Amino acid sequence: MRMYDLIAKKQAGFELSKEEINYFIEGYTKGTIPDYQVSALLMAIYFKKMNERETADLTMAMVNSGDVLDLSMIEGVKVDKHSTGGVGDTTTLVLTPMVAALGIPVAKMSGRGLGHTGGTIDKLETFKGFSVEMSKEKFIEDVNNIKIAVVGQTADLVPADKKLYALRDVTSTVENISLIASSIMSKKIASGADAIVLDVKVGDGAFMKSYEDAKNLGEAMVSIGDNVGRRTIAVISDMDQPLGLAVGNALEVKEAIETLKGNGPKDLFELCLTLGSNMVMLANESLTEAKAREMLLETITSGAAIAKLKEFIAAQGGDVSCIDDINLLPKAQHIIEVKSDKEGYVSKIHAQEIGVVAMKLGAGRETKESVIDLAVGVVLNKKRNDYVEVGDTLAYIHANSLELGSKLKEELASCYEISKEYEEKIPLIYDIIK
Amino acid sequence: MRMYDLIAKKQAGFELSKEEINYFIEGYTKGTIPDYQVSALLMAIYFKKMNERETADLTMAMVNSGDVLDLSMIEGVKVDKHSTGGVGDTTTLVLTPMVAALGIPVAKMSGRGLGHTGGTIDKLETFKGFSVEMSKEKFIEDVNNIKIAVVGQTADLVPADKKLYALRDVTSTVENISLIASSIMSKKIASGADAIVLDVKVGDGAFMKSYEDAKNLGEAMVSIGDNVGRRTIAVISDMDQPLGLAVGNALEVKEAIETLKGNGPKDLFELCLTLGSNMVMLANESLTEAKAREMLLETITSGAAIAKLKEFIAAQGGDVSCIDDINLLPKAQHIIEVKSDKEGYVSKIHAQEIGVVAMKLGAGRETKESVIDLAVGVVLNKKRNDYVEVGDTLAYIHANSLELGSKLKEELASCYEISKEYEEKIPLIYDIIK
Repeated sequence: MRMYDLIAKKQAGFELSKEEINYFIEGYTKGTIPDYQVSALLMAIYFKKMNERETADLTMAMVNSGDVLDLSMIEGVKVDKHSTGGVGDTTTLVLTPMVAALGIPVAKMSGRGLGHTGGTIDKLETFKGFSVEMSKEKFIEDVNNIKIAVVGQTADLVPADKKLYALRDVTSTVENISLIASSIMSKKIASGADAIVLDVKVGDGAFMKSYEDAKNLGEAMVSIGDNVGRRTIAVISDMDQPLGLAVGNALEVKEAIETLKGNGPKDLFELCLTLGSNMVMLANESLTEAKAREMLLETITSGAAIAKLKEFIAAQGGDVSCIDDINLLPKAQHIIEVKSDKEGYVSKIHAQEIGVVAMKLGAGRETKESVIDLAVGVVLNKKRNDYVEVGDTLAYIHANSLELGSKLKEELASCYEISKEYEEKIPLIYDIIK
Repeated sequence: MRMYDLIAKKQAGFELSKEEINYFIEGYTKGTIPDYQVSALLMAIYFKKMNERETADLTMAMVNSGDVLDLSMIEGVKVDKHSTGGVGDTTTLVLTPMVAALGIPVAKMSGRGLGHTGGTIDKLETFKGFSVEMSKEKFIEDVNNIKIAVVGQTADLVPADKKLYALRDVTSTVENISLIASSIMSKKIASGADAIVLDVKVGDGAFMKSYEDAKNLGEAMVSIGDNVGRRTIAVISDMDQPLGLAVGNALEVKEAIETLKGNGPKDLFELCLTLGSNMVMLANESLTEAKAREMLLETITSGAAIAKLKEFIAAQGGDVSCIDDINLLPKAQHIIEVKSDKEGYVSKIHAQEIGVVAMKLGAGRETKESVIDLAVGVVLNKKRNDYVEVGDTLAYIHANSLELGSKLKEELASCYEISKEYEEKIPLIYDIIK
């Protein structure tokens, strides 16, 4: 087999066989196929696309390029949840204790990553002493005993994706549904998931800017799942404004705790119920959606979910006193009000730019070496469709530097668009693809 | 400027500016732009094409990537001729003395290259003592004095093309008209040509297999010439059978000498008159085609052309005695007849495969290190539309190994297709694009 022939075949619009896709991914991972041939193939894929069969084969070839986590020692259906990334997305912190409280195993391998705020691990480290360092044995034991554990990424998962993504990033070949879908799905499958619930965000603060694109991506990932025997559901949800109110690490943890106590923002809680009920249904196929939602709601009202969070944090060495008293969480020195100079309805909140303000405050990483300030961030006071008068507070900046915080007031205010007309509400959940 | 943006721009179907094309070619030549970004751009160009302006800018960017020969010290219009390559193409050896005999300067820089038979330099070295090693001063002096000189390639001409071609060759991005046309034209322009006559071959033995493709390439090159101030004419000529009868180095030299003496194959001579008259008209725009042809014919009947060949070979140290007595040229030890086992009209001669037989005999280079056997090759006895009976000689194999020569008899015979029906003649000259 020659890489040249694969390039020419795809360039002419033909399907690549499973053997050809395996040859390409194995060769690229081992370094026997050079970058310049791979980038030519990627560009040909960009123009000529891949069909569902090719996309599924590509996904499994990537899964097999590195370690695959064996979670067979964990009882039950391992349902993983993945979000395509948004601003102020606290769902993982809320969802996982709710689901675990129902006895469904949550075995998460997480990374830190770059972004406007930290990753799940950074947020969990808000609990003093919390650690994701543990043996594979303890990880499996914890999940079996308390149904939830989060471990740092130690295994060499999907090395092909790391190489491919770096190359796509510099050759303008990121934006192809098959390449995006296989990249996401390969990581979930290599992490040992039996079934997957995907939260595909759409809007200004998301990777997918249009509903059509998000739907196509969701469908592509569900199709991969069908083809490789991992039941997958994709929820298309709104990211045209930040989810919930908090954008920042400790601020989001606080919001998650409040939500688990039943006092969270409506949109965040509703999304958690939607994603969660689909996870519950994947774990137990006999349940209806209404029943799954009812069971999840009960974990809140009964206190089981917040108790599960405490149990989980404690099991990994974290200080849980702040769960009872949220004032013990890290706090920024300055809270700066950002006021409206217009009157009308909030018609848009530029989520992406809100994220940038949070990152500038120190909540996120610009480079791998950046140190995160857990306390800082943004808390919204008004959301889309709210009515504001001149002088009303739009949002609060939580800063550890008064100078920096004050400098960002105008930038934060300009994230809000205010209109005289009341515009129709955008749905929180656009679609559920099964 | 960032290479990423150029890739994305072309991928979206937009025109690249002159500055962007210069940036790309300069960066790639210097090594500051990596292969993997260039191959992605080349694939995007394959799908989205380049327009005439971009193709002309690409050509000049490549010209300027290395040395450009300054032939301004040579009097007159320097008209160069280029063939896109065929089998048994002896035109250069015939044409150049004819044109030079009319006082039009022929200043050729040539390479050896790979192919079924050697390059122009290999063929010229059939004359014992002939050398292409000379100073730039002697080269210019020779052209001014005797109107013809051939020098080996010493200057660093179009290094961008060398790098690009090597990359295209392994990434399935050779076949794009703009890339092919700019590659050819940049080398001619860097070699100092004021005007260019192109012989674009079409057919089984050529790079361009269809008339449409050859016409598109011819038009693209003429358009480049127009855009960069080098008057260019493209002749589309047949290569569905070898040109002339001889395929091999000394065999082609012998055929060239015979042609200059007025005894050459009709197709070879006719093509030389067509290409030559266009060269003459480019050098002297006041001449009509009929007049140019008449002048060229006179160089044969008067003996001026064969005298010019002698003068030229002698000036570069070559033994010219074989021009008067062609029996002094290198000769193979064995001449093997290849006979027909069918009766009918020759409907096709697979030119490409004839070339392969010649190469297997030792006439061409498979790798840069191969040593050429000047004496061996193939001489056709029957050409397309000739009637053959069983037992008639189709062709002769000139071999220095009886075993090898005999082994290739069948392969050579199978290059001939013989049909009961007389098929219409294919024209020698399809088109002339100005």
